[in-house]
Amino acid sequence: MPIAIVLLAAATPLPAAPAAQPIVRRTLHAASFKAAETILRTDHERFVAEIVAITQTASWPFGEDNRARLYADLMGQSGFTDVTIDGIGNVVGVRPGRNHKLPALVVAAHLDTVFPQGTDVTVRRDGTRLMAPGIGDDSRGLAALLAFFRAMDGAKVQTDRDILFVGNVGEEGQGDLRGTRYLFQNNVRARTAAGFISIDSSGAGKIVTKGVGSNRYHIVFSGPGGHSYDKFGIVNPMVPLAKTVVGLYGIKVPAEPKVTYSASVAGGGTSVNTIPPQVFVDVDMRSTSTAEVERVDRELRAIAGQAIDEENAARSTARGKVSVDFQVIGKRPAGQTDETKGLAAIAFGAATAFGYDSHFIAVSTDANVPMSLGIPAITIGSGGSGGAEHSPDEWIDVEPVESVKGLTVGLVTIISAATAR
Amino acid sequence: MPIAIVLLAAATPLPAAPAAQPIVRRTLHAASFKAAETILRTDHERFVAEIVAITQTASWPFGEDNRARLYADLMGQSGFTDVTIDGIGNVVGVRPGRNHKLPALVVAAHLDTVFPQGTDVTVRRDGTRLMAPGIGDDSRGLAALLAFFRAMDGAKVQTDRDILFVGNVGEEGQGDLRGTRYLFQNNVRARTAAGFISIDSSGAGKIVTKGVGSNRYHIVFSGPGGHSYDKFGIVNPMVPLAKTVVGLYGIKVPAEPKVTYSASVAGGGTSVNTIPPQVFVDVDMRSTSTAEVERVDRELRAIAGQAIDEENAARSTARGKVSVDFQVIGKRPAGQTDETKGLAAIAFGAATAFGYDSHFIAVSTDANVPMSLGIPAITIGSGGSGGAEHSPDEWIDVEPVESVKGLTVGLVTIISAATAR
Repeated sequence: MPIAIVLLAAATPLPAAPAAQPIVRRTLHAASFKAAETILRTDHERFVAEIVAITQTASWPFGEDNRARLYADLMGQSGFTDVTIDGIGNVVGVRPGRNHKLPALVVAAHLDTVFPQGTDVTVRRDGTRLMAPGIGDDSRGLAALLAFFRAMDGAKVQTDRDILFVGNVGEEGQGDLRGTRYLFQNNVRARTAAGFISIDSSGAGKIVTKGVGSNRYHIVFSGPGGHSYDKFGIVNPMVPLAKTVVGLYGIKVPAEPKVTYSASVAGGGTSVNTIPPQVFVDVDMRSTSTAEVERVDRELRAIAGQAIDEENAARSTARGKVSVDFQVIGKRPAGQTDETKGLAAIAFGAATAFGYDSHFIAVSTDANVPMSLGIPAITIGSGGSGGAEHSPDEWIDVEPVESVKGLTVGLVTIISAATAR
Repeated sequence: MPIAIVLLAAATPLPAAPAAQPIVRRTLHAASFKAAETILRTDHERFVAEIVAITQTASWPFGEDNRARLYADLMGQSGFTDVTIDGIGNVVGVRPGRNHKLPALVVAAHLDTVFPQGTDVTVRRDGTRLMAPGIGDDSRGLAALLAFFRAMDGAKVQTDRDILFVGNVGEEGQGDLRGTRYLFQNNVRARTAAGFISIDSSGAGKIVTKGVGSNRYHIVFSGPGGHSYDKFGIVNPMVPLAKTVVGLYGIKVPAEPKVTYSASVAGGGTSVNTIPPQVFVDVDMRSTSTAEVERVDRELRAIAGQAIDEENAARSTARGKVSVDFQVIGKRPAGQTDETKGLAAIAFGAATAFGYDSHFIAVSTDANVPMSLGIPAITIGSGGSGGAEHSPDEWIDVEPVESVKGLTVGLVTIISAATAR
């Protein structure tokens, strides 16, 4: 989860707090949970050591293999007996519940970072502050899953549902959620899951219940091109590009659900004295409503098509016509999870119980995929404080009291969600 | 002179051939000219050797120094006694005429090429065909000036006017005619000259009498920028850019004088999910009429200004406004030379006398500068055949009969033009 987005996303003011969750209260009062909480505390140094080990095993977009192998090893060392790496590179470890026939709970953290191959991922330490690219987003989340498992196992916490602990690939940017897409297409337990919780980035209290969907295009406009003086009068693909941008910014959008678009990057052309044979503009459109994204998408394609027709009619096509090609950069499905009950309410109750100011927020995370499939899904933090995500100065603070408290919120949420109702 | 432009430029159909030029006839029948023509023939191997030496002394945009020094040496070896390199790097050699008080004739070829530093400029030879970057544009022209001087000196040709032979810098692209600009601003003999002849590229018969002027801009649109989802609703500099392009392509232009414009190169933006803080478009506008270029320029600036105002009114400027900055890439003055008499008629008569199909054409060359100052100016070829200028496969053919015949047209033109009337 890009913290940049999390920090910038306006917190949705909660109309009314979800009803207090009896399941959360039951979890908190169980003797096994008290034991698990104690283990989280005593296990904290191992947790920190694992954050460092994971961070220092570089994992770049489409290059998560080394970290995946490390993560499978760490799962084995933590006591998982059923660990596999699936066809796209997700690491999946299963913790059996009482009833294997119940729909499972999926708990995931992502293996990839935004940082390219070759980035220095050495962890620097200053007191309880650890600094390195990717350390909070999402090394801490990955290590949290291992700590949750060990705490539950050590305290003999029994859940009704099986829990699939997943280290997944492809959450960031161009990864385009391919890890969770693959998981929910190919893993039967995931496809039929009762819920999905992504542990992504540090912090506690922010609960992603709206998955912002997006369509992103590299729109290429082509034409014959030619010398700017001698061939003046022929079609120029820059004109339909310009009309498409102007048209895009004329599209009306509602206040709710939120819909956005952006003409973000432009490029192309040969030299100042050449009518360009090819130019492009990159466009991003987003909403928590898939229908709204698709509406803007349709309107934009119609605008571009009309601009092409107008250009081919306005200027000479003797040397060739202009044309347009929408090349997909990314498509993330939109979705949302009911904020009044179930998973979202459990997470809200758990965070509130530990004194965190809880909010529901709208961001694009791995939870988009199950949300779009109708599976209740949320994304929450792994606890502790941190910042500067997606920058080389990324940091987390592992001061034990706060760090363990934040972790505990996740543990309560998971145990409660794995309880059948 | 970029041959690409020469080849592409539509030849202006001549309404009526200029009146036969008595001066040309007198030159052709003078005994001294016959002797000079013979010297051109016997000197041809040296001429070819000099083309090779000049070509193999790399001379890139703003990096003409080495070739300038070589050229000054070659002028000295050819018998020039008055050779200087001026403040911008032009090599100037003077051949005195009978009357130093008469306005001089300036004959120039350009030292620069379009090829960047590090380009392999080794000349390959296949029979009479020589291949290397810049060999025709304008090594052959530079060597032609030396051959003209030796032929005139050897044959004791006396002209009325002093002739300034100039190897000038900065003809191509970004050089923006800075060599000739400097010459006509700072050299008194040039500033008061009777005429200017640029010997540029191979061939004979094409006579540049219209200097296509141009204004070229790198137009930068700036704004606050921000996250595409969170900051949706703020001004986006891509929109006024797009409106400026659409507006440019709505500007009406007359058929005569020819006026052209092109939105040629676009760029800018950070990532697909960022409202760009800065985008640009490069625009070229040209005409044989400076007034027309300036009209299009004014209209474009008004369109861009209005687009900026509209964007600042249409969307939020809470984080900053959009603005536009026209950065000058190049400004070449337009101009033309009377085609019915004087220099143009002399060149026409000389080419016709040797059987060449003569045309007047409109191109941007070093002659633009004197044309814009009201000094009669033309650009003609150095003879011989050639092609692929501005490409690494550039070639010329130095088959002696055709090569010398083409050179002779230049010699007749220069001697005739240096004769007072």
